[in-house]
Amino acid sequence: MLEKLKEEVFEANLDLVRESLVIHTWGNASGRDPESGMIVIKPSGVNYVTMKPADMVVLYPDGRIAEGKFKPSTDAPTHLFLYNNWSNIGGVVHTHSAYAASWAQAGKAIPPFGTTHADHFFGEVPCTRELKASEIKKDYEANTGKVIVEAMGKLDPLTVPSVLVLNHGPFSWGNNVAAAVYNAVALEEIARMAFYTTLLGNSKPVSAALLDKHYSRKHGKDAYYGQSKK
Amino acid sequence: MLEKLKEEVFEANLDLVRESLVIHTWGNASGRDPESGMIVIKPSGVNYVTMKPADMVVLYPDGRIAEGKFKPSTDAPTHLFLYNNWSNIGGVVHTHSAYAASWAQAGKAIPPFGTTHADHFFGEVPCTRELKASEIKKDYEANTGKVIVEAMGKLDPLTVPSVLVLNHGPFSWGNNVAAAVYNAVALEEIARMAFYTTLLGNSKPVSAALLDKHYSRKHGKDAYYGQSKK
Amino acid sequence: MLEKLKEEVFEANLDLVRESLVIHTWGNASGRDPESGMIVIKPSGVNYVTMKPADMVVLYPDGRIAEGKFKPSTDAPTHLFLYNNWSNIGGVVHTHSAYAASWAQAGKAIPPFGTTHADHFFGEVPCTRELKASEIKKDYEANTGKVIVEAMGKLDPLTVPSVLVLNHGPFSWGNNVAAAVYNAVALEEIARMAFYTTLLGNSKPVSAALLDKHYSRKHGKDAYYGQSKK
Amino acid sequence: MLEKLKEEVFEANLDLVRESLVIHTWGNASGRDPESGMIVIKPSGVNYVTMKPADMVVLYPDGRIAEGKFKPSTDAPTHLFLYNNWSNIGGVVHTHSAYAASWAQAGKAIPPFGTTHADHFFGEVPCTRELKASEIKKDYEANTGKVIVEAMGKLDPLTVPSVLVLNHGPFSWGNNVAAAVYNAVALEEIARMAFYTTLLGNSKPVSAALLDKHYSRKHGKDAYYGQSKK
Repeated sequence: MLEKLKEEVFEANLDLVRESLVIHTWGNASGRDPESGMIVIKPSGVNYVTMKPADMVVLYPDGRIAEGKFKPSTDAPTHLFLYNNWSNIGGVVHTHSAYAASWAQAGKAIPPFGTTHADHFFGEVPCTRELKASEIKKDYEANTGKVIVEAMGKLDPLTVPSVLVLNHGPFSWGNNVAAAVYNAVALEEIARMAFYTTLLGNSKPVSAALLDKHYSRKHGKDAYYGQSKK
Repeated sequence: MLEKLKEEVFEANLDLVRESLVIHTWGNASGRDPESGMIVIKPSGVNYVTMKPADMVVLYPDGRIAEGKFKPSTDAPTHLFLYNNWSNIGGVVHTHSAYAASWAQAGKAIPPFGTTHADHFFGEVPCTRELKASEIKKDYEANTGKVIVEAMGKLDPLTVPSVLVLNHGPFSWGNNVAAAVYNAVALEEIARMAFYTTLLGNSKPVSAALLDKHYSRKHGKDAYYGQSKK
Repeated sequence: MLEKLKEEVFEANLDLVRESLVIHTWGNASGRDPESGMIVIKPSGVNYVTMKPADMVVLYPDGRIAEGKFKPSTDAPTHLFLYNNWSNIGGVVHTHSAYAASWAQAGKAIPPFGTTHADHFFGEVPCTRELKASEIKKDYEANTGKVIVEAMGKLDPLTVPSVLVLNHGPFSWGNNVAAAVYNAVALEEIARMAFYTTLLGNSKPVSAALLDKHYSRKHGKDAYYGQSKK
Repeated sequence: MLEKLKEEVFEANLDLVRESLVIHTWGNASGRDPESGMIVIKPSGVNYVTMKPADMVVLYPDGRIAEGKFKPSTDAPTHLFLYNNWSNIGGVVHTHSAYAASWAQAGKAIPPFGTTHADHFFGEVPCTRELKASEIKKDYEANTGKVIVEAMGKLDPLTVPSVLVLNHGPFSWGNNVAAAVYNAVALEEIARMAFYTTLLGNSKPVSAALLDKHYSRKHGKDAYYGQSKK
């Protein structure tokens, strides 16, 4: 079932390696079928070299396995929590990409220092609160989803498509799994630039006017970046 | 029309990716035909993998489209502003290369810390002033060109062939589009070295004598670097 | 003798280069045959391009050469000291990978700043004490092994599979030589992230609860990461 | 004439690009024929893609061209100054590799922070004094050689085979041109590690005992690293 989505999720997981966001098996990507609401996700701890599209695991929205000979990614409950809270997303990606993870380890949101950031994230990339010991002990992965949703608050997840999980690393999402990978790549680059910017002595974000201009020329209803969609 | 220039501009845009100055579609390059004064520029937001030379857009100096089935790069008005103000340039490149963009995000000109800088830029690489809210709201891209020209002041654009746009990123230019790419590559490397130099505790630029020597041995009328042109 | 292990040790040494942990001949890897207790190690200062599996040197646990036309790696006595003290390891790797070596040069243990660290190292990666002049003068390489074992104290070497040797660089180990390489790769990445995290202003390690959760979900008796072993 | 040396010098120049020490034409390598004392050096500003072994320029020790259709590298007088002062070197390399050049731009010698350094450089890598305006104005390149020799003082050039030229970049040398490239690669890596080490807060070099041990186990008369030379 969902062979095309399996192929997309498979390719997305490999893209994380090709884009140097993931080493070893430090990442996972999933996609949601818009029709059935089923989730396709990478199996847990399987070698990227031997992994095949058919190895992807299909989950019901409540987490039960619909199809698959492998266990799903350990982080599947985090992915499900996001899908179940945000109806407008179709793909989720988790990595330990070095710069984004370092901001997460420093416990700091990534400030919007420039237009590169503004082109992709409408405001800072938030960092979650610390999980309580009880939240770590039981349902840890679902609770990771919970603090992500908390950190986003009233933000539309498609306008700020990434969050840093404190002491952990980034989660990104998008309309579909390829868009989630796209956003994860953008996040790592803006995290890198924000790191350099901070070391050069700046802590002042871009003006609201410039943030708004760049975000809206690319994404708003009056967007004029790219070719018009027919 | 201008098939050869289209090919050059196409290759220049791909070179920005090959040289790791551009990820996603975060860059654009253009060239000016010395005879007609027409500008050839990358289309907006088109995927680099499928893009062809024929997809390049030809513009009149006033910005009207002369040929092309795609919309030109969103930043076309910035390119045009530079061409219209500086008659001696033949190519313009814009990137969000990480080190140069980080200096732009920090709001600091890149000091000429050494001979690598002096070989390519005769003095600091300036950083523009902040755009006013009104300049952002209306004709934003043309106004970006305006603050670049302002920041250059009386400098010959070919002696300092790059500027940092505050909170945004670098623009570079040259005699032709290949030279603009060459300068964008040099800029990113001197931006990287200036970053390291600053972190090692230096804030003192190279002496005027050494700056002058290196710039003029490569570019001045008594230049003796390279092979003599016949 | 031990042709399969020679092949594994040979590949492990090349993996160090492929993974960008080693330039020139700045590294070495060895493996222990679980049956005989013999050690297979890279020859000293041999070019990686021309090196063959048959060039690996076989050593008795006391350091005498059992087979091999080359001298073993200069660091062989360090490897042997670790094998002879820790019965549960089957592979040892030494590199001068830049981030890990820089922590070693700074004389600082790598703090567990996040879950990437916790997934692989159950606590900080220790840094050894300084060798005394007498320990440097005589049996230097064996004494390097001694201070590694000292720095580990009562830790199980398989729960913290790397140590930084002060002013020198990292040693990593594992069940077998491939696992030692895997850990050396993980170490360099967590060293890189800890470097960035420190520069962003954090010096506070991850909570004990989160460290424990991540380590044990991957390695403990109740581990649920990866596929169940049959 | 000297076809074999031309081939070696040609390959050495390309190695500088392959090893990521040189972009554009920011580097040059030369070799000395031990029999005749003639110097073979890269032509000035020639594109690496089209350059051939036969394009190398042969110089007499006094700088006159013995053979070659191109002008020699602009830095040839620096190379010649080093050859003429140090009879035991057979190759010279100049790059603007980013970390080493950044130390040069910061005006700081690279301290021997660890054994990686000690394995290749017997003590700090010196940084030259500032050139006087008169030394820049006339015979600039030869005077660059002069301050390098001054900075080395009584050191044997083969025990510390690199110097940083203030506000400029590194020069490295060796027994032959391949050894000079080898040392330039080692220099850039130890410059990178020293940069990280400094940012982690260390400014204290390795002990004399450890510096001596590592240098002499690899290079001294009692060296035991590598295979014995027959």
